[in-house]
Amino acid sequence: MEATLAITEAVTKKPKPDPNSLQFGKTFTDHMFTMEYKADEGWTNPQIKPYAPIEIDPAAMVFHYSQTVFEGLKAYRTKDGVVRLFRPEENFKRLNRSNKRLSIPPIDEKSAIEHLKQLVALEKDWIPTEEGTSLYIRPFVIATEPSLQVAPAKSYQLFIILSPVGSYYPTGIQPVSIMVEEDTTRAVRGGTGSAKTGGNYSAGYNAQAKATANGHAQVLWLDGMEKKYIEEVGSMNVFFKINGEIVTPELSDSILEGITRKSVIELLKSWKVPVSERRVTMQEVKDAYDNGTLEEAFGSGTAAVISPIGELTWRDTTMTINGGETGDVTTSLYKTITNIQTGKERDPFGWTLKL
Amino acid sequence: MEATLAITEAVTKKPKPDPNSLQFGKTFTDHMFTMEYKADEGWTNPQIKPYAPIEIDPAAMVFHYSQTVFEGLKAYRTKDGVVRLFRPEENFKRLNRSNKRLSIPPIDEKSAIEHLKQLVALEKDWIPTEEGTSLYIRPFVIATEPSLQVAPAKSYQLFIILSPVGSYYPTGIQPVSIMVEEDTTRAVRGGTGSAKTGGNYSAGYNAQAKATANGHAQVLWLDGMEKKYIEEVGSMNVFFKINGEIVTPELSDSILEGITRKSVIELLKSWKVPVSERRVTMQEVKDAYDNGTLEEAFGSGTAAVISPIGELTWRDTTMTINGGETGDVTTSLYKTITNIQTGKERDPFGWTLKL
Ligand SMILES: Cc1ncc(COP(=O)(O)O)c(C=O)c1O
Ligand SMILES: Cc1ncc(COP(=O)(O)O)c(C=O)c1O
Repeated sequence: MEATLAITEAVTKKPKPDPNSLQFGKTFTDHMFTMEYKADEGWTNPQIKPYAPIEIDPAAMVFHYSQTVFEGLKAYRTKDGVVRLFRPEENFKRLNRSNKRLSIPPIDEKSAIEHLKQLVALEKDWIPTEEGTSLYIRPFVIATEPSLQVAPAKSYQLFIILSPVGSYYPTGIQPVSIMVEEDTTRAVRGGTGSAKTGGNYSAGYNAQAKATANGHAQVLWLDGMEKKYIEEVGSMNVFFKINGEIVTPELSDSILEGITRKSVIELLKSWKVPVSERRVTMQEVKDAYDNGTLEEAFGSGTAAVISPIGELTWRDTTMTINGGETGDVTTSLYKTITNIQTGKERDPFGWTLKL
Repeated sequence: MEATLAITEAVTKKPKPDPNSLQFGKTFTDHMFTMEYKADEGWTNPQIKPYAPIEIDPAAMVFHYSQTVFEGLKAYRTKDGVVRLFRPEENFKRLNRSNKRLSIPPIDEKSAIEHLKQLVALEKDWIPTEEGTSLYIRPFVIATEPSLQVAPAKSYQLFIILSPVGSYYPTGIQPVSIMVEEDTTRAVRGGTGSAKTGGNYSAGYNAQAKATANGHAQVLWLDGMEKKYIEEVGSMNVFFKINGEIVTPELSDSILEGITRKSVIELLKSWKVPVSERRVTMQEVKDAYDNGTLEEAFGSGTAAVISPIGELTWRDTTMTINGGETGDVTTSLYKTITNIQTGKERDPFGWTLKL
């Protein structure tokens, strides 16, 4: 049995930020959720308490061997005060899949969602209501045992922190320029690519810096073995519309199973738009471009929801997709998913969880 | 210009542990070294202060994207009180190579060594003098900026913590059993394998658990692309003696350039023992075993120095090497390197730095 949730309210509350000048992931709310794992007690001591620096031993294993996993999801609030979470059960399922890959003990998904709901309810006033804004939710687990042994820790801490975020597209949905990365590798068969663990992200900083220096927004990652198959775009899954069909790389242990990806596929199926999950080579995309059948391309992820790709640079070729404009299917997906998330449209899939 | 080192001594000192019951990396000394990086000041504020938990924001980027690097080296003390560091300049060079891969700003290697010397001098009494014991030194850098943006941090902290360690071989040098891992991957071309960064280590926990469950001490890692070429053993580099020649996998961006490895190669060359750094397939080792020319095998690393491999299991074959006993070259390397480290033998290479 898990202990009951203890709630300590913050004595002083921070002023709420201007929703029009929010930077992603820089502002945090007044409270956070924490829970500990001890070898002999399991996950215990669930608490909501004031957001504050934590005290941690410099030998805590997370600092040395990066035994850590995280999640990212959003809560949306309408002007009339209704708060919706988008598919939180999928995030906690994925957290446990990541835990497994990183040898971290699984959490109870049901009670985690209950605790999250209580935290978000307490922080309700922090959720902006302006078009495109939301509350970004970041659950994460870190290994806290002080030990330099290269082995799974005996103690962990789970946190949920909350950050109000502004619109990803303050001036309307905008296609971006993407560079195909062929030197460095994000993930490989047998590695940690399908887990949401920190090491996958810092591994990509050099490639991202190169892309930025060359005027691109993000990199497109190829498979680590042959640098032939398309995997992801930045921290998003990727889709192409080729000759009327939507294709996306099939899942493998080097691709993160995005919840937006899953939603896109379900939505397309409900629309009877042909969609297939299969291996896609960069050459296939280039050939489609050359013969005029590369019709649209976009990334999918919690932060941007849908991010149209206007330009794709591979080696010496820059492909302009759909004249650099957002394609029709891309637009429909963006509108429908965000409308469901914010309650503007009916949710026939049961994706949203009202508080 | 870097600021001068500020030293705050601990008011109460911890009792020194029994050198015969030390577990690796579980006991820490009274003081630690810290230094901060700020975007507008560079590396600043070097301090030696009491070893204690640190205060850090839960949004600190190290927790989310594992932007972190570390090092490991040892100090040895003789009964007459002389303290020697083993090749510290190599460790700080490697730290900066790791920093580069992880987009962390480089540190000044010279001043880092000066600060390390001051820290070790202050903690001199913590260094055990018994046969095989030493003081393990763990420098590490973590990204401290509170931000959820997937990008290099603007602030960092470097720590050096110290841990007295017991003998790796309390009952004399012992060959171990190794299992070749073919499912999961530690590192791949274009990845972070040649950097000493946390993500490489927790990625191997599942494989290590499988090895342990099957009665093996460590795993042998193959290349991530073809699972054909030998890379490392656990957290050690690996050597084979085949038909009179010592061979070790050549360096690549998926192999950590070990300082013990480097010392082994230099020592073998000085002994005129044939040694070559080249690609080695698992099949080659198996063939050598089959035709009776696989004479010795060992791992090399700071913790064990030299770790003889008595048994190597690949798929259905278990190869017993040198009758399961430590080979002659393995023994000579272990003795000579440890003798140089502890000052029992002359150091013709200038490897040791006396305090
Ligand atoms: C590497 C990676 N790929 C894809 C995604 C998209 O996943 P989701 O749609 O669940 O946000 C993410 C997370 O945002 C990610 O970190
Ligand atoms: C992955 C890995 N390989 C090899 C080594 C050996 O390096 P060194 O001899 O510098 O300790 C280490 C560090 O101990 C390591 O972490």
